[in-house]
Amino acid sequence: MMPRGRPRALGAAALLSLLLLLIGFFLFRGHPEYGRPHGVAALEGDPPADHRGHNSSDCVPPRPLLPKCELLHVAIVCAGHNSSREVVTLVKSMLFYRKNPLHLHLVTDAVARNILETLFHTWMVPAIWVSFYDADELKTQISWIPNKHYSGLYGLMKLVLPGALPPDLARVIVLDTDVTFTSDIAELWALFANFSDKQVIGLVENQSDWYLGNLWRNHRPWPALGRGFNTGVILLWLDRLRQVGWEQMWKLTATRELLTLPATSLADQDIFNAVIKEHPGLVQTLPCVWNVQLSDHTLAERCYLEASDLKVIHWNSPKKLRVKNKHAGSFRNLYLTFLEYDGNLLRRELFGCPSPPPPEAEQLQQALAQLDEEDPCSGFRQQQLSVHRVHITFLPHEPPPPRPNDVTLVAQLSMDRDIDFLPAHSLYDYLRASIEQLELRSGRKVALVVPAFETLHYHFSFPSSKVDLLALLDAGALYTFRYHEWPQGHAPTDYARWREAQAPYHVQWAADYEPYVVVPRDCPRYDPRFVGFGWNKVAHVMELDAQEYELLVLPEAFTIHLPHTPSLDSSRFRFSPTYRDCLQALKDEFHQDLSRHYGAAALKYLTALQQPQGPT
Amino acid sequence: MMPRGRPRALGAAALLSLLLLLIGFFLFRGHPEYGRPHGVAALEGDPPADHRGHNSSDCVPPRPLLPKCELLHVAIVCAGHNSSREVVTLVKSMLFYRKNPLHLHLVTDAVARNILETLFHTWMVPAIWVSFYDADELKTQISWIPNKHYSGLYGLMKLVLPGALPPDLARVIVLDTDVTFTSDIAELWALFANFSDKQVIGLVENQSDWYLGNLWRNHRPWPALGRGFNTGVILLWLDRLRQVGWEQMWKLTATRELLTLPATSLADQDIFNAVIKEHPGLVQTLPCVWNVQLSDHTLAERCYLEASDLKVIHWNSPKKLRVKNKHAGSFRNLYLTFLEYDGNLLRRELFGCPSPPPPEAEQLQQALAQLDEEDPCSGFRQQQLSVHRVHITFLPHEPPPPRPNDVTLVAQLSMDRDIDFLPAHSLYDYLRASIEQLELRSGRKVALVVPAFETLHYHFSFPSSKVDLLALLDAGALYTFRYHEWPQGHAPTDYARWREAQAPYHVQWAADYEPYVVVPRDCPRYDPRFVGFGWNKVAHVMELDAQEYELLVLPEAFTIHLPHTPSLDSSRFRFSPTYRDCLQALKDEFHQDLSRHYGAAALKYLTALQQPQGPT
Repeated sequence: MMPRGRPRALGAAALLSLLLLLIGFFLFRGHPEYGRPHGVAALEGDPPADHRGHNSSDCVPPRPLLPKCELLHVAIVCAGHNSSREVVTLVKSMLFYRKNPLHLHLVTDAVARNILETLFHTWMVPAIWVSFYDADELKTQISWIPNKHYSGLYGLMKLVLPGALPPDLARVIVLDTDVTFTSDIAELWALFANFSDKQVIGLVENQSDWYLGNLWRNHRPWPALGRGFNTGVILLWLDRLRQVGWEQMWKLTATRELLTLPATSLADQDIFNAVIKEHPGLVQTLPCVWNVQLSDHTLAERCYLEASDLKVIHWNSPKKLRVKNKHAGSFRNLYLTFLEYDGNLLRRELFGCPSPPPPEAEQLQQALAQLDEEDPCSGFRQQQLSVHRVHITFLPHEPPPPRPNDVTLVAQLSMDRDIDFLPAHSLYDYLRASIEQLELRSGRKVALVVPAFETLHYHFSFPSSKVDLLALLDAGALYTFRYHEWPQGHAPTDYARWREAQAPYHVQWAADYEPYVVVPRDCPRYDPRFVGFGWNKVAHVMELDAQEYELLVLPEAFTIHLPHTPSLDSSRFRFSPTYRDCLQALKDEFHQDLSRHYGAAALKYLTALQQPQGPT
Repeated sequence: MMPRGRPRALGAAALLSLLLLLIGFFLFRGHPEYGRPHGVAALEGDPPADHRGHNSSDCVPPRPLLPKCELLHVAIVCAGHNSSREVVTLVKSMLFYRKNPLHLHLVTDAVARNILETLFHTWMVPAIWVSFYDADELKTQISWIPNKHYSGLYGLMKLVLPGALPPDLARVIVLDTDVTFTSDIAELWALFANFSDKQVIGLVENQSDWYLGNLWRNHRPWPALGRGFNTGVILLWLDRLRQVGWEQMWKLTATRELLTLPATSLADQDIFNAVIKEHPGLVQTLPCVWNVQLSDHTLAERCYLEASDLKVIHWNSPKKLRVKNKHAGSFRNLYLTFLEYDGNLLRRELFGCPSPPPPEAEQLQQALAQLDEEDPCSGFRQQQLSVHRVHITFLPHEPPPPRPNDVTLVAQLSMDRDIDFLPAHSLYDYLRASIEQLELRSGRKVALVVPAFETLHYHFSFPSSKVDLLALLDAGALYTFRYHEWPQGHAPTDYARWREAQAPYHVQWAADYEPYVVVPRDCPRYDPRFVGFGWNKVAHVMELDAQEYELLVLPEAFTIHLPHTPSLDSSRFRFSPTYRDCLQALKDEFHQDLSRHYGAAALKYLTALQQPQGPT
């Protein structure tokens, strides 16, 4: 435990902001890469791969829409915490149906880049490449445009993509973060083939009467062809746009319209429509199913009732999922499908599209291949090798300014369980003061022990001081942690001495000791062998001791455990002899490693443990 | 609580066998129906629905493969508990991608019919029709064939489908329960169009060398064309099969082959292949992607590496998901996608394919439409209206023979929480004896109270008798239930009297009383208003009292609550004022209903509750 400030109230928020998304094995070969892929562009022109060397009874797979393995490019503007969370549902829906390698071009602010870079790096979906473009650098090109739309400045950035994306990128699909795919994006990409020589932008007609200007009295929308077009889904033929002087074109139109109109109401969409009204030859109208718009007064129904299939749903009301619609339930079910989808299941190969894995994935692959599936502990060993998909700052979070002697709380939780330890109100300030007084910044190797207690009641008035806590302990409302089940786990903390202590005191390591500790950042890490229930803290404290860390108990520090249902792993420990046997095998391996690293000094751990093993 | 025998050991199994699958709202219009749909056949020949009355700027949706809303027919043989569970994953994958109405023809034994009839009836997916055919009636037609395949007699039933399915059914897709769709079944149905006039069966080539007969020395497979065909996915042109005399044809071939071969090794597949060897003109070879076979020595790789797309995965190894394969991880991820998929999300309409809802769905629809979404309690009211998808006997379960004075334990649980009450070992027999002694079979209106206790420890030695229990109570290892948080919930049980009681004793209803009771089947039901945390038992006991049920405490009966994490709903109750306000509104409505039904006699409940409300 390494707590940081305002621990009680901010506990849940701080932890959620560190949320580690669910676990999966890394049993595939591809990888995401940062920056443009090398040698991928050549695949774009490959012929369809339907040469078969089989005998005549072999069947003929249906012909693909596009050359197999053709790389498709997608651009998305994404800024802030909320959009970074929303875009994941879009990406999951897109990856679910896709059969082609994809290159994502993400125009992001610093917050979104930080989140999405970590996410894609750890997600490790095969045959995905991700490039980031700095939204702040593009701001000057559009910040002169007054805009009233809720997407703010970022919506307008779609206008400058032809200049912002790499000059050799010829075509791209541009998506808003609030769309959901219900079909393969390759079918959308294939619509580029329908463009005439002069067409540069593919768009779906706007599915509301907004641009007809009759929604209310004095409603004065920007000019548009008929109902205009919606820019939630765009096919951009970038090199042609550059040739026709797109930048001058839209700036001229926007400047002229802004002489009589006060601001854009719908951000980039108003400007795209004004340009198209002036140059109708630029636009290729896409089938309506590629952007089924669920805005407040949508006319989309006549599209999706007649079509054989929905392709993309666009939640383009500020109400998003709560929008009123006759078929809202069905649309929500499609969205929830991908909101709830376990993204780890997208770690699947594109069969027949080679995508060289990065070196670390290769090593992992080899390690996994060496696992013996008949080994009853192979489940443990696979878990050790698992790579977690990480979504940092899942909820909006501003890191506080750094303070001297700062401490950070590190914890883990699952989506279905509230956190089970609450630290003392004053712990953050007290720890920082203790670090100062004990001069721990000097690099002194010390683990500060925070004594742990437990309550068995769901309703519980948290003690505001050590005096309060001792009163609750004496009244039987609190116990020392795991007093009933496993007292030896915390016995060396010496609770009797702690009651009376006025100053920090040293304690000695003993077998099974597993206190909650505050340690410097550069301390040994947890051993990933012990991923389930049992021995993770024991092994960590043993390693701290082997590295000659002092164990120093703080007289005013405490933390309290709240009741919860036993975890699945703790039940496995109790009921599965295999689980216990495997844990024993892992302990033996850990001891062998200790001996290798620390030599004779590590003997004491083995000696201390030549006793019947308990369930720690 | 209505406990039945062997409660301790069989508790979990019995409950799992009653498993209620997750909850969803019924926000759609279609329905499943039993028996053949009326008026649907006419839709089969409808022209493609791409007539559009829009103005010229309207886009053209892509042309469907089949006429929109064409009804497709699928036949599956399914018997026993395990296949009934497996087939749900197949059905989910098929429904996920389908865009057409489907009619499922299920050939089932009594177990599978019971499970699947309940499942589809409660699932209420729009535009699905289900017909059942009795497998037992078909057995005599195939039981003469010796068979060594693990699918047993049921595998062979695919041979007799042309005779078993309705005579006016012209074409059907036949599926094994161990296939997973990764594409729209309409694409498979569309392959009927490729049949020549003489072709009657569509099959994918077998993706192993089995029928080449060189797998081991003296391996003598049934005759086949080359590698033969796999019958996990079949297109059957039923009316042509009937015309060509299919029944005589396969029986003749099977009889002849069985003169020299001892039995079928691969059930129906051996016989289909032998017939095709003799009449190669009958077969239309389907593209390999429609049956990617992951058997132990599969040759499927050359199919799926070259194809643009997988369509159907067939887990045709007895090892199923544990089969060894270079790409096992990716295939498993596809399977897990549908295993884990929340089937309630499939309650979505086929837009533009009208499918008249049954009367009860219509009523529900109207009730939902009348909900005011701005009402802060609308979440509660939606939950009241929710219809659960029910999978009975999720695990194999043989109902015990009926016994006199029988009692059944009714409970609920979620997938992530172990059950939280354990009844006394002897409770089942004791309850039956008590019912006999108290002559309750006569229709006397009695609710037997089972006193409840609780332990706060995860490790706990269950008392074997009342004497044991009282000793634990005196030692502080047990408490009366909710002693700390809400003693009034069980106070009227009068634990002091229970300690000494030798005979059943009457107790009186009081405000907030919520004992666990054993009641006759015809007692009032729980009120669905109180679906979350709070007041479900209180309301039920109040209604029992209003109907003049005697409350009789049994002196030797007891049940013990084990610790668990507070549920999400109990946290909502504690932390959300809206939740508490809504619960209060529902209580008020309940009291109004009580007054309406029971008149002045119900006044006492209102009077008793004119006190500050607690968290029951």
